[in-house]
Amino acid sequence: MKGKIALEECWTIPETFQSFNPSQFAGKGVIGDDLNANLLDVHGKRLQEMDENDVEFMVLSLNAPGVQNVTDPAAAEKLAEIANDKIEAEVLKDPKRFAAFAALSMHDPAQAGRELRRCMTEKKGFVGAMLNDFQSSGPDGNTMLFYDDPKYDEFWKVAHELKAPVYLHPRTSSPLIKEMMWKGRPWLDFSALGYANRLNMHTLGIITGGVLDRFPDLKIIIGHMGEHIPYDLYRIDHKLDRSRFPNMPMRKDRLVRDYFGTQVFITTSGHFSTPALICAMTEIGARSICFSIDYPFESIPNGCCWWDEHVSPVVNERDFVDMGRNNALQIFPRLTEGLHGLKEMGPAECGVGGLRAEDGEVTFGMYNKDFNKRGKKMYS
Amino acid sequence: MKGKIALEECWTIPETFQSFNPSQFAGKGVIGDDLNANLLDVHGKRLQEMDENDVEFMVLSLNAPGVQNVTDPAAAEKLAEIANDKIEAEVLKDPKRFAAFAALSMHDPAQAGRELRRCMTEKKGFVGAMLNDFQSSGPDGNTMLFYDDPKYDEFWKVAHELKAPVYLHPRTSSPLIKEMMWKGRPWLDFSALGYANRLNMHTLGIITGGVLDRFPDLKIIIGHMGEHIPYDLYRIDHKLDRSRFPNMPMRKDRLVRDYFGTQVFITTSGHFSTPALICAMTEIGARSICFSIDYPFESIPNGCCWWDEHVSPVVNERDFVDMGRNNALQIFPRLTEGLHGLKEMGPAECGVGGLRAEDGEVTFGMYNKDFNKRGKKMYS
Amino acid sequence: MKGKIALEECWTIPETFQSFNPSQFAGKGVIGDDLNANLLDVHGKRLQEMDENDVEFMVLSLNAPGVQNVTDPAAAEKLAEIANDKIEAEVLKDPKRFAAFAALSMHDPAQAGRELRRCMTEKKGFVGAMLNDFQSSGPDGNTMLFYDDPKYDEFWKVAHELKAPVYLHPRTSSPLIKEMMWKGRPWLDFSALGYANRLNMHTLGIITGGVLDRFPDLKIIIGHMGEHIPYDLYRIDHKLDRSRFPNMPMRKDRLVRDYFGTQVFITTSGHFSTPALICAMTEIGARSICFSIDYPFESIPNGCCWWDEHVSPVVNERDFVDMGRNNALQIFPRLTEGLHGLKEMGPAECGVGGLRAEDGEVTFGMYNKDFNKRGKKMYS
Amino acid sequence: MKGKIALEECWTIPETFQSFNPSQFAGKGVIGDDLNANLLDVHGKRLQEMDENDVEFMVLSLNAPGVQNVTDPAAAEKLAEIANDKIEAEVLKDPKRFAAFAALSMHDPAQAGRELRRCMTEKKGFVGAMLNDFQSSGPDGNTMLFYDDPKYDEFWKVAHELKAPVYLHPRTSSPLIKEMMWKGRPWLDFSALGYANRLNMHTLGIITGGVLDRFPDLKIIIGHMGEHIPYDLYRIDHKLDRSRFPNMPMRKDRLVRDYFGTQVFITTSGHFSTPALICAMTEIGARSICFSIDYPFESIPNGCCWWDEHVSPVVNERDFVDMGRNNALQIFPRLTEGLHGLKEMGPAECGVGGLRAEDGEVTFGMYNKDFNKRGKKMYS
Repeated sequence: MKGKIALEECWTIPETFQSFNPSQFAGKGVIGDDLNANLLDVHGKRLQEMDENDVEFMVLSLNAPGVQNVTDPAAAEKLAEIANDKIEAEVLKDPKRFAAFAALSMHDPAQAGRELRRCMTEKKGFVGAMLNDFQSSGPDGNTMLFYDDPKYDEFWKVAHELKAPVYLHPRTSSPLIKEMMWKGRPWLDFSALGYANRLNMHTLGIITGGVLDRFPDLKIIIGHMGEHIPYDLYRIDHKLDRSRFPNMPMRKDRLVRDYFGTQVFITTSGHFSTPALICAMTEIGARSICFSIDYPFESIPNGCCWWDEHVSPVVNERDFVDMGRNNALQIFPRLTEGLHGLKEMGPAECGVGGLRAEDGEVTFGMYNKDFNKRGKKMYS
Repeated sequence: MKGKIALEECWTIPETFQSFNPSQFAGKGVIGDDLNANLLDVHGKRLQEMDENDVEFMVLSLNAPGVQNVTDPAAAEKLAEIANDKIEAEVLKDPKRFAAFAALSMHDPAQAGRELRRCMTEKKGFVGAMLNDFQSSGPDGNTMLFYDDPKYDEFWKVAHELKAPVYLHPRTSSPLIKEMMWKGRPWLDFSALGYANRLNMHTLGIITGGVLDRFPDLKIIIGHMGEHIPYDLYRIDHKLDRSRFPNMPMRKDRLVRDYFGTQVFITTSGHFSTPALICAMTEIGARSICFSIDYPFESIPNGCCWWDEHVSPVVNERDFVDMGRNNALQIFPRLTEGLHGLKEMGPAECGVGGLRAEDGEVTFGMYNKDFNKRGKKMYS
Repeated sequence: MKGKIALEECWTIPETFQSFNPSQFAGKGVIGDDLNANLLDVHGKRLQEMDENDVEFMVLSLNAPGVQNVTDPAAAEKLAEIANDKIEAEVLKDPKRFAAFAALSMHDPAQAGRELRRCMTEKKGFVGAMLNDFQSSGPDGNTMLFYDDPKYDEFWKVAHELKAPVYLHPRTSSPLIKEMMWKGRPWLDFSALGYANRLNMHTLGIITGGVLDRFPDLKIIIGHMGEHIPYDLYRIDHKLDRSRFPNMPMRKDRLVRDYFGTQVFITTSGHFSTPALICAMTEIGARSICFSIDYPFESIPNGCCWWDEHVSPVVNERDFVDMGRNNALQIFPRLTEGLHGLKEMGPAECGVGGLRAEDGEVTFGMYNKDFNKRGKKMYS
Repeated sequence: MKGKIALEECWTIPETFQSFNPSQFAGKGVIGDDLNANLLDVHGKRLQEMDENDVEFMVLSLNAPGVQNVTDPAAAEKLAEIANDKIEAEVLKDPKRFAAFAALSMHDPAQAGRELRRCMTEKKGFVGAMLNDFQSSGPDGNTMLFYDDPKYDEFWKVAHELKAPVYLHPRTSSPLIKEMMWKGRPWLDFSALGYANRLNMHTLGIITGGVLDRFPDLKIIIGHMGEHIPYDLYRIDHKLDRSRFPNMPMRKDRLVRDYFGTQVFITTSGHFSTPALICAMTEIGARSICFSIDYPFESIPNGCCWWDEHVSPVVNERDFVDMGRNNALQIFPRLTEGLHGLKEMGPAECGVGGLRAEDGEVTFGMYNKDFNKRGKKMYS
């Protein structure tokens, strides 16, 4: 599919390696060797693979846990500022292909709002913010700041006013939780399970805490096919029983389900499962879902191979191009403005559906010149 | 779901019983006894059941095979004219609840175009036309006129100019086909199978004949979950091999699949199957599908019970209200104009999603006052 | 998937070209050039492609319409006998890879039963019969003999006694039907639509005619994802209203739906659509469905690529290997006997699921050595 | 569906209220008022509702967190013993309708094994054990004992030898976790989200810890549609990268996915969502899934209404009766033995599929005597 837009694509600056070095967690011989280099790169291999795989546009974000792992407020704020200045410079080198999410220190809601405002109004190339789950705080890093605390309304108000969507990204757990719950089985703490378990709690905390009600222009996005939430929406709404929890702040006439597609959206980042995508489409609708990859923790060609070859035969073409591209333009209207200038595209413009005649030969389906050859995957 | 719009809803005038009496084919003791009465009624029991089941609007059409079964051209034209005059009168008694499809004799394409133009421009309350499959012709009624014959371009041109969508409805087979293929097993000839087998051939004939390419503002609608076509779209496009059939008029760069959602639409009439609906949504997308009942051959309460109680838990709420209502307004823009004045509605307006607090008690889900009582169907 | 068994795989003898030459209907430059050669071949290219694509076993059948297109009874009977003798010889050259369906003339039910008995008891390598829809009869070939006629009970009784499943395969229409219904649009008559429209009627005729009730050990199989039937099962059962059709012979306490999985089975031949497969699994269950290709009208590598790469991620592994292999052994127990000696296999034996370690490197998923390369289809 | 078997059905003894009183967490006016009474009851209202809703059989288990919340080992062991003695007595009053899971203190793996052995060999009516997630331990109850710790092999060995399946049930979090992660939003801690987040971690810990490899006859069951796991299976297997986690004990040639259907099973308890069920069937297969209710935290009639009326039209009848009944007999072979004497049943025996003729009237589908009445839910 031509014209794909990807939203959860990581980038970093050497300064973040002090608090977290991704390569230490990646296996050898696979992506580990190149992980740091791929994170630091924007216009080299990354862009080349985007070209090769029909990814027209990426919204870049600072690698997790990033600023959220810096327990010293001043250091966190400084790191965010540096990252935002640097990513702006990278975006402006090629604004038809890249935009950025602001990195923010969440120690002080007012300062977070100011930095978001600086990025969205004084700088160019920012379309929203990305927060890496809770903010680590306290001397031992065991205090977890969650943004459904009412004091964060000061921050959410700014995002709402600026119409700046906020992407919630998972992160590693705090040292104490790690000790209590994941000891001896670190593989569960990370992306296989722990990431989603923590972020879905935080996300539901924000929704049930009434943040989206108080700030109706606020939009939040979560990746990894919704961090388990779409599959459990029935049970979530069923068990958030109002007679049992009369003090839950969320609007009394709403279900969690009702926020999807207007204020809550999910992406496919790092969860290239067709059955999960179909379940999510059934529960929250195609208009709530955006394609994403999670580069460089996932491979651009493999994520795109899944989308282009595996998803396309099981999703109708309108929903397919909406999820692959157009929904992102609805959620992030800045992408359609002058600097980036992205436009909605139909199936035919995206090369979806239709017969592709090449040299007078029809190439659709199996009645083509390759009829008698297996579509064997070859890696040149 | 409040605000449902239904598109394949039959009505008749006594004059049609001469060529076809529906009650003779209906079993006793079920709907057969009342079938003719229900067909003749508009504002009585029909409207009452619409009210009781949240059907806001019906587009009425003359009962099949109707005019298409009249082999004498003059008689056919006269019957269509009478029917159109009568249905206009009925619609104008309650235009906020009813509109009509024009009935047309298809013996003479030019005359069919004139009658369609008369209905759409000189009369009120018409939003398109309904054709009951092929036009029976010839002295023995065995000649079948199909509308992909190039001579019908004269008719399609009018529908295209008037932006009048054409609903293709199935009908009984011709006497000779009946003798050759269905003899001794009449149950297969009708709605169980034969209807769809004939109409899908006719529909694909129109599409592959290039009619939709020559008249890009023309829209066609088929009922009964698409008369098998969505399930077989892969095989249809795969087997309409262009090197094998170089003379097939349809655009060389298109698949049959590509016409759905822009020029071809389906309805759920008389096919209240959730797995078939899900398959259709997967293949052609929710925006290609409209709710319909097929009253009085189907029951309004049962069709609505399926939609409201069985479909709603397995389709996301946006697609659900689009299929139940909003898509019809896109296909038939006349419905949004002054006479009928229908408007798009969101899930909350349709009563879909959300908690319904009654007397301070939350009624969503199973934690309600009926928690310990089975949802047992009671027929009062 | 290793160990796949394919059931609708055509083969022919030069004698059939007199009544029907497949190549005349195939487009140039694609499969047309080689079609006849591929039909005549068993142990050459066919076997090589089976090896390359993990097809362990094929049940061969005479190319349609074959004997069913021969209007002279004596000639038809002779052709069937020749074909059966020849296919036995081919099967016996490699019985671990091939078995055969008997070809039968259906002019005379008693003779058809005798030839089936000859194949199943006096000859080796036969596991059932294949009938190509109706038997053409009469001087002009316009008489269509359907096997739900009570006189065919004499034939079905033999199939029931021998526990010989009967595969119903589609064919071209009769000259008169062609003239009346498909004139000017021959592309609709064949595999895109007409094949299924005729065969689903014949199949439902047999079911509703009570044949399966009178012969409870009889099993029938239809290809092409069930010739539209699974998608329409709700409507079929709903409309086969017993009060309307009191003379329909099928058991009064049964639905058509109830015969699937015990007496009626479908295959995937020539309909490599994942949404259709999922719909069929929902309606009739994985245990009613068998993998098949429809070689040489379809490509072995392409059919297997669909199954191995596209279906495997959206079907659980037990259903996947049952449909790909084990169900066939349930339906055709002869395949498990000495001559062919096929055995049930589990997912791991079929290479489904699990990590495949090669040279100490894990190859599952995307964290493999090809992580950064697109799974690009290359045809060597 | 007749003959349903339900596996996660709670019961309690007054002694457990000391450590956990369920009613304190239930809202007023709904189920809260009766919750404790319903938990204590077996043969009264519970059995009556089973009769009214075609639940033939329940496996009873002590209400969570039960023994797992008792931090004193001696008290925990004593409570388990009392509960097991009492539940045996209840089961033996009506063994054709009830069996039991043993409650176990998990402070001492050897003692847990001894108590399981006592229940399975010296007592009657036990078919396995139920563990309520981690065992609370330590003076402040903040130590969480997880059973993937190698010291628990001593317990798992007994379950494996006895072929006693172990049901893993969720529970509330420890006080410290509650303080750190759920403070101020208690609604997230419980069944809406927290339950699943903790139990899926524990379950994956057991699987990835190699417990199922070391004890191949061990089977575990989890409820609530698999505690998010089926939806995330792709991502879980993808991210449990062996080059990244070389010390993960699970077999190197296996995926987590591969254990479902042979050693890991899920139930529908408290998660009456059709889209989630379909996703689970796609990922792990119908043979890995069993019907359950979660009474009295869920309503018997409502859970059965979902299964009988909402699931039946979207699942083929064989898978439907397997999930509703037969799979349980495969997992718990003791249910088929003399005391309980349950047998496999086919669709017709379960009243699934087929026409139901009553007084000569056909009641299937919508062509019945209630044709013109809405299936309106009435609660008498």
